[in-house]
Amino acid sequence: MATQTLELDSDVTVFSPEHPLAGFDSLIDGLRECGRLFHSRGWSVGTSSNYSVILSQDPVDLVVTASGLDKGALGRADFVRVGADGKPSAPGQPKSSAETMLHVVLAQRPETVGCVLHTHSIWSTLLSNHFFSQGGFEIAGFEMLKGLEGITTHETRFWVPIFENTQDIPALARQVEQLQAESPERITHGFLIRRHGLYTWGRNVAAARRHVEIFEFLFECVARTTDLRQTQQVN
Amino acid sequence: MATQTLELDSDVTVFSPEHPLAGFDSLIDGLRECGRLFHSRGWSVGTSSNYSVILSQDPVDLVVTASGLDKGALGRADFVRVGADGKPSAPGQPKSSAETMLHVVLAQRPETVGCVLHTHSIWSTLLSNHFFSQGGFEIAGFEMLKGLEGITTHETRFWVPIFENTQDIPALARQVEQLQAESPERITHGFLIRRHGLYTWGRNVAAARRHVEIFEFLFECVARTTDLRQTQQVN
Amino acid sequence: MATQTLELDSDVTVFSPEHPLAGFDSLIDGLRECGRLFHSRGWSVGTSSNYSVILSQDPVDLVVTASGLDKGALGRADFVRVGADGKPSAPGQPKSSAETMLHVVLAQRPETVGCVLHTHSIWSTLLSNHFFSQGGFEIAGFEMLKGLEGITTHETRFWVPIFENTQDIPALARQVEQLQAESPERITHGFLIRRHGLYTWGRNVAAARRHVEIFEFLFECVARTTDLRQTQQVN
Amino acid sequence: MATQTLELDSDVTVFSPEHPLAGFDSLIDGLRECGRLFHSRGWSVGTSSNYSVILSQDPVDLVVTASGLDKGALGRADFVRVGADGKPSAPGQPKSSAETMLHVVLAQRPETVGCVLHTHSIWSTLLSNHFFSQGGFEIAGFEMLKGLEGITTHETRFWVPIFENTQDIPALARQVEQLQAESPERITHGFLIRRHGLYTWGRNVAAARRHVEIFEFLFECVARTTDLRQTQQVN
Repeated sequence: MATQTLELDSDVTVFSPEHPLAGFDSLIDGLRECGRLFHSRGWSVGTSSNYSVILSQDPVDLVVTASGLDKGALGRADFVRVGADGKPSAPGQPKSSAETMLHVVLAQRPETVGCVLHTHSIWSTLLSNHFFSQGGFEIAGFEMLKGLEGITTHETRFWVPIFENTQDIPALARQVEQLQAESPERITHGFLIRRHGLYTWGRNVAAARRHVEIFEFLFECVARTTDLRQTQQVN
Repeated sequence: MATQTLELDSDVTVFSPEHPLAGFDSLIDGLRECGRLFHSRGWSVGTSSNYSVILSQDPVDLVVTASGLDKGALGRADFVRVGADGKPSAPGQPKSSAETMLHVVLAQRPETVGCVLHTHSIWSTLLSNHFFSQGGFEIAGFEMLKGLEGITTHETRFWVPIFENTQDIPALARQVEQLQAESPERITHGFLIRRHGLYTWGRNVAAARRHVEIFEFLFECVARTTDLRQTQQVN
Repeated sequence: MATQTLELDSDVTVFSPEHPLAGFDSLIDGLRECGRLFHSRGWSVGTSSNYSVILSQDPVDLVVTASGLDKGALGRADFVRVGADGKPSAPGQPKSSAETMLHVVLAQRPETVGCVLHTHSIWSTLLSNHFFSQGGFEIAGFEMLKGLEGITTHETRFWVPIFENTQDIPALARQVEQLQAESPERITHGFLIRRHGLYTWGRNVAAARRHVEIFEFLFECVARTTDLRQTQQVN
Repeated sequence: MATQTLELDSDVTVFSPEHPLAGFDSLIDGLRECGRLFHSRGWSVGTSSNYSVILSQDPVDLVVTASGLDKGALGRADFVRVGADGKPSAPGQPKSSAETMLHVVLAQRPETVGCVLHTHSIWSTLLSNHFFSQGGFEIAGFEMLKGLEGITTHETRFWVPIFENTQDIPALARQVEQLQAESPERITHGFLIRRHGLYTWGRNVAAARRHVEIFEFLFECVARTTDLRQTQQVN
């Protein structure tokens, strides 16, 4: 495949060998490219979103975006290495995203997850509110469903679960864990948080990024055939 | 005309003389540029779509995108040379797209077809479902119809046929062949597959690419004057 | 103002002194940049649109895009110099756009017109059909109206005339001339052709390009507050 | 954070030490980058919009865009340094934006304001008209509200005030001052001018730019769940 270096900026941070991010340049560059793409699409604007790569599942070891940065212009040093407690696993690192614990929970899914991407698009925000009262919504019959790992036919009924938004991320993480444990068939490739955004994942950065593109495509298809003006107002 | 090399990335794969892709660099670069454009437009996201150039009509000899790649970043080696059976015509090549047999069928159309492009846009997906029950839909009266090869006036009534989606590509290819044989006036520049996307073609890459742009423009015009919320649900 | 050379491609055609385009490099580069911008916006796709710069009003002497090219990748040689008859004023030039006579008519407007731009957007296509039966539509009360030359307040009632589309360009050109002569207040900065697109102009390339951006902005504002699904069908 | 120099054009104006803009290159480059981004998003087209950085609050000293330029291609010299009277504070500078007095008023807000950005988007134009009769509108319950400085939960009810448009900018500036004095809780991060656009601000260029992105995201969310065709017509 073609190298995708053309869009990379001139940030050539070189980490010393003992730096917690040393050796992960290409994974980090993959996340930076996601940031540029998603910002340009309008899915990661206003310093929203966070992205991670999973280095190890047990014990959990991951690299996640630092808090509060413009995702369209991430540098190599704009990441934090964290462990199972969601805290920086080495001193001197920036603050990690407030939602890091969701990345930790998703890193432990049974299938090998190599990357977790969280985005905030218009369509995901609107659909997550519109269908909230029914707990999620089904997407069925689209060829593009085949872009989700393991789906081989458009004749698929796919469920997108929606969680209520909260600032209590550990509580939300437990809800996600619970659904994964009790109804894994209802949370296979991603989920929405109400009026907030999408979480999706994949075995590597390319797979997770593909999932973001597929979900956004499907969300727009659903939204444009739904009367969003009848969405119940927030209370 | 201006060289369009500015957007080309730094992939400078050089094929050995006996490689099945040797000598087709500029045709392949034309398809790669289609990929970059269509990905940026949202018509080829999530590794969807496939593109081919026809080297020979009889016997069929074509170069088609390998399966499952990000169309926004195709390299020169991300293509496969195939024959009339849709299989790689030389060993050591990547797997071709699952839909290669549609390219083979279209390569044999009576007018000389030099390029076949398959894309997945939001509007083509929605219209192909909305108008499925009537077998297609008519586009009439738009100046932009003149962008389709051989059409010289906006006073044209143009038919866009829609086929039911299926994972049985050979069966679909036979349906396309049958319509081409029985009602060629109903399938002149392209067709839709339900909830899947567009196939169009042209005498060379530029003509086929122009057809994609024209179809997408016309689809958006039709979609924005149609109440898509009344589309019948998939069953 | 900043030089806008960054996006220029590597086309460095050098014309011999006797070439009809010699000496107009910067004007031509201005039109090429319009092409790149308008193509990326979706206003000049599928080889649609044509652009000109007026070198002299009396006698009419202008440089206009050659026929049928991708407007996103115009080279310096993709232009034709024409006179009052709309025909190439020197031998060996490419064919000019079929709509050249409209540029000739607009070049002769009383105010000095230095550039004429013709584009095909979705919104202009849809509005030109929706409001056709009333001969045009009014745009009033928008601050962005001040982007049209000579308008100094949003408290303006601005008329956008719509002409029926036709392939008889000389006949259309006469209709435009007639409206300009009889009701100049009804055709001050631009007009629409039904289901076809926009013509606008300005004292130089920057002014005409600004007018395209202003019209497109206002068209989208009008379209999004209009029920386009009630547009009468073409007959 | 990564340097964002990749998109900067080749304008390398070097100011002499006594030039009123000398020493502010990086602030000016920050505004230029806002211009490129907002123009590409369609929020600053047709030479609309103006941007400023506040150098001093008391006495007011700021750098603001010169009048009437393409915001997608600002050069370093396309700015003016002005004082509390909104007039150039040194001779030989270009004319400043007609709306400079609004920047002056906002520069004096109690919290430290480092940057003021004024944009013209489709959604802000339409919403500012739709909700004008009620004086503004509320945005509540969106995670993206947290992108506005100081907001820490989506459980926020946020008011967007709307002022009637006028060409009498000093009068409008006094209205803004009055609302700030009497109901500061109703005008915390930005406001709309009817059928005109958005003003927002922040402690530096990055914060103000983030606010533009957040407001535009929220405006689109509101607009897509509102029936804009029922907007009362301008009178």
